[in-house]
Amino acid sequence: MVQATALVRNENGIGAALGILKQQFGERFHTGASIREQHAHTTTWIANQPPDGVVFAQSTQEVAEVVKICAAHRVPIIPFGTGTSLEGHVNAPAGGISIDVSQMNKVLEVNAGDLDCRVQPGVTRMALNTHLRDQGLFFPIDPGADASIGGMAATRASGTNAVRYGTMKDNVLSLEVVMANGEIIRTASRARKSSAGYDLTRLMVGSEGTLGIITEVTLRLQGIPEAISAASCSFPSVGAACETVMAVIQYGLPVARIELLDALVVKAVNSYSKLSLPETPLLLLEFHGSDAGVAEQAETFGALASEFGGTGYAATTSVEERTKLWQARHDAYWAMLALRPGSKAVATDVCVPISKLAEAVVASNEKAAELNLIAPVVGHAGDGNFHASLLIDMEDAAEVARAEEFVSWLNDRAIALGGTCTGEHGIGQGKRPYLIKELGGAVEVMSAIKRALDPDDIMNPGKILP
Amino acid sequence: MVQATALVRNENGIGAALGILKQQFGERFHTGASIREQHAHTTTWIANQPPDGVVFAQSTQEVAEVVKICAAHRVPIIPFGTGTSLEGHVNAPAGGISIDVSQMNKVLEVNAGDLDCRVQPGVTRMALNTHLRDQGLFFPIDPGADASIGGMAATRASGTNAVRYGTMKDNVLSLEVVMANGEIIRTASRARKSSAGYDLTRLMVGSEGTLGIITEVTLRLQGIPEAISAASCSFPSVGAACETVMAVIQYGLPVARIELLDALVVKAVNSYSKLSLPETPLLLLEFHGSDAGVAEQAETFGALASEFGGTGYAATTSVEERTKLWQARHDAYWAMLALRPGSKAVATDVCVPISKLAEAVVASNEKAAELNLIAPVVGHAGDGNFHASLLIDMEDAAEVARAEEFVSWLNDRAIALGGTCTGEHGIGQGKRPYLIKELGGAVEVMSAIKRALDPDDIMNPGKILP
Repeated sequence: MVQATALVRNENGIGAALGILKQQFGERFHTGASIREQHAHTTTWIANQPPDGVVFAQSTQEVAEVVKICAAHRVPIIPFGTGTSLEGHVNAPAGGISIDVSQMNKVLEVNAGDLDCRVQPGVTRMALNTHLRDQGLFFPIDPGADASIGGMAATRASGTNAVRYGTMKDNVLSLEVVMANGEIIRTASRARKSSAGYDLTRLMVGSEGTLGIITEVTLRLQGIPEAISAASCSFPSVGAACETVMAVIQYGLPVARIELLDALVVKAVNSYSKLSLPETPLLLLEFHGSDAGVAEQAETFGALASEFGGTGYAATTSVEERTKLWQARHDAYWAMLALRPGSKAVATDVCVPISKLAEAVVASNEKAAELNLIAPVVGHAGDGNFHASLLIDMEDAAEVARAEEFVSWLNDRAIALGGTCTGEHGIGQGKRPYLIKELGGAVEVMSAIKRALDPDDIMNPGKILP
Repeated sequence: MVQATALVRNENGIGAALGILKQQFGERFHTGASIREQHAHTTTWIANQPPDGVVFAQSTQEVAEVVKICAAHRVPIIPFGTGTSLEGHVNAPAGGISIDVSQMNKVLEVNAGDLDCRVQPGVTRMALNTHLRDQGLFFPIDPGADASIGGMAATRASGTNAVRYGTMKDNVLSLEVVMANGEIIRTASRARKSSAGYDLTRLMVGSEGTLGIITEVTLRLQGIPEAISAASCSFPSVGAACETVMAVIQYGLPVARIELLDALVVKAVNSYSKLSLPETPLLLLEFHGSDAGVAEQAETFGALASEFGGTGYAATTSVEERTKLWQARHDAYWAMLALRPGSKAVATDVCVPISKLAEAVVASNEKAAELNLIAPVVGHAGDGNFHASLLIDMEDAAEVARAEEFVSWLNDRAIALGGTCTGEHGIGQGKRPYLIKELGGAVEVMSAIKRALDPDDIMNPGKILP
């Protein structure tokens, strides 16, 4: 495990808060070791730093109550949705109380006529889409994991559909937030656009629980497209695949998904899912629109891909074939892990301007080879965002050190190319040094905002900021 | 004129700053009455509150220098682009220095491959589009006036294309900002998406110069569509026109523009522009896409419109005919003014959830009639945003009072319908009481951010916040 810095604990305050919370929340308050550790499960190589207690809140008022108790005793609060974040977001480096919102899982309102809905933060994206299906609506953001909507908002998540539908910043209309003093605010109206003062919605989206706890989310929805078409296309090199993506974006083709799997991932998926794809870089695509529209998009893509040596391309509107095509992508994580049984997968998350994508992915492959690391790449290529996933033997200290060198090199490289160290996973504990490299003096502005809204640093301390 | 509250002036500080600025900026520093008044021209009924001096800055470093001088003497700073804002944004209620960035008008970089560009804040949207045309690119945000990109970012502007391309919040990738202490920050990388810390880009977009001065803007661009088709359609009632817009949005038809003109505006335009449109509510449309795509969109719209009694509908891809069709919209402001020569036009700017649009526009028409006011309506209907423009005899105190009653009623009504008092004009001086009605306790969070980033309240004081 990579150690995360521990912060100073306020033992007296924590003790007092534990007593009050036990009294007020009874069976919904837990201090057992396993439940505490589970609530600090970081999914990657960052060591577990459990909170001192876990409250299962059932309403905004209860969240506000917990915050007021913790504020009175200067005790850290760590919001918890499904625990699928990747940068130590739910760790408790100074101890404190995890507020688990998974029981706040109601879809409160669907306004089909306005293409929006209001949900509690513990609703997961899959549960929401199940709820919406009968009304012909869907919520497009797909970060892979069945994350909670609150957590997705807090980390500014995105995923495979972002190239067409944007990220959480584009799809959250308004938030209800419990601030560090226990006050409950609503950041915006339900209007589709607004110039009403500072954009607190966007400030809270991506603030990773460090400014407040999201207790309700109003989301934009989309109508389920009349037609969906899917396709895959193989390429002679990862460079050629990336050049195709760049051409697609520059052409303005409104692809709904355009995902890159490098040759190593394709090999892994063939083996794991018993497929027989050519073991070269692959693009997986989805087109949304009218029947004629998706046919035209698919045809245009084919013409662009052939210019870069794309082969084996065929689009399909059959649901069954689409599911089969996308299986390679859905299985990629487990397939990669199976490349090296017993290894730990550590996800990187750089995002570069699209014109730099080929250069960045090729360099990532070369650097991994140079450092004798296994680092297969999948990417939300249309956004310039890709994940080199390091498969590491955590018992091998030298390899862990090489992996750290790779992560550092990759983040620096992305920043040097005009990109970011995180396209969608967030900063958490793991990327704090890179945030400063990336944005310099702007981080001091972030810190000033943090001090203003959370003067005692009780909201998810030790995350994002230095 | 409607008086704006004057704030306390720091006479000593202002005197000291004037002396230093005169020395440092020579002929680019002005204290003449007419230039000062011109820099506080509010375009509406809010009285002019001129700054004490105007500096024409030519670089980020110069802006930072002015800010440092003003900060040292606690003197207000009011950024100025083209002066086309509508809520008293450029007024100087406590005096101070107007920083005019109109000479910072260079397009610094166009990355055609990434569909982005970096510009100085004084570049106007039309100048930018002229610059981009040869590369097959355009910047879609069209607020009507040929506003500066810096000003458009500062007010979170949008306009006719927002229904398809979003607002400034969706089209600014990154900003360079001079903060209240003179520090220069960059808010984000050039990546298309990012989860790197607090979204300072979106915090600054719409902050109306109250948190910092925008000195560079990195924008997303669009490829000029392969085909553009335009159309108009008349409706028996404003309700029917709005119902059609609601159906279009709910259907998911990706209209690039869908603008509403009520019967009074159509009448005004007929008279002003010598047209012969049926004097009933009108929708003006534009479709962007492939040749086949725009044809399909136009056909779908026609089918939807006929369900609500739409007549006289025909789409055209001829540039000439499109220009003629849109003339009605472009002339609307002057045509409305001509309805009552000598009157002052006061724009309102509510935005409601799309399902409430018909109700809101009908109520606006009825309320204007009840108060014996002339208030023609144009609307960016696809966003639920509309402007009832009051044509007022400013000499008639009773009429001005009725107009104020109308504005207050309309803003309250929009808020009660789940909407906002401002879809795109911003809060400025004029809408501050409504911001509190709309967002309540969230305004205190905004104030805390303001105090943290601008403790001496020198950045455009008296705007947005109470």
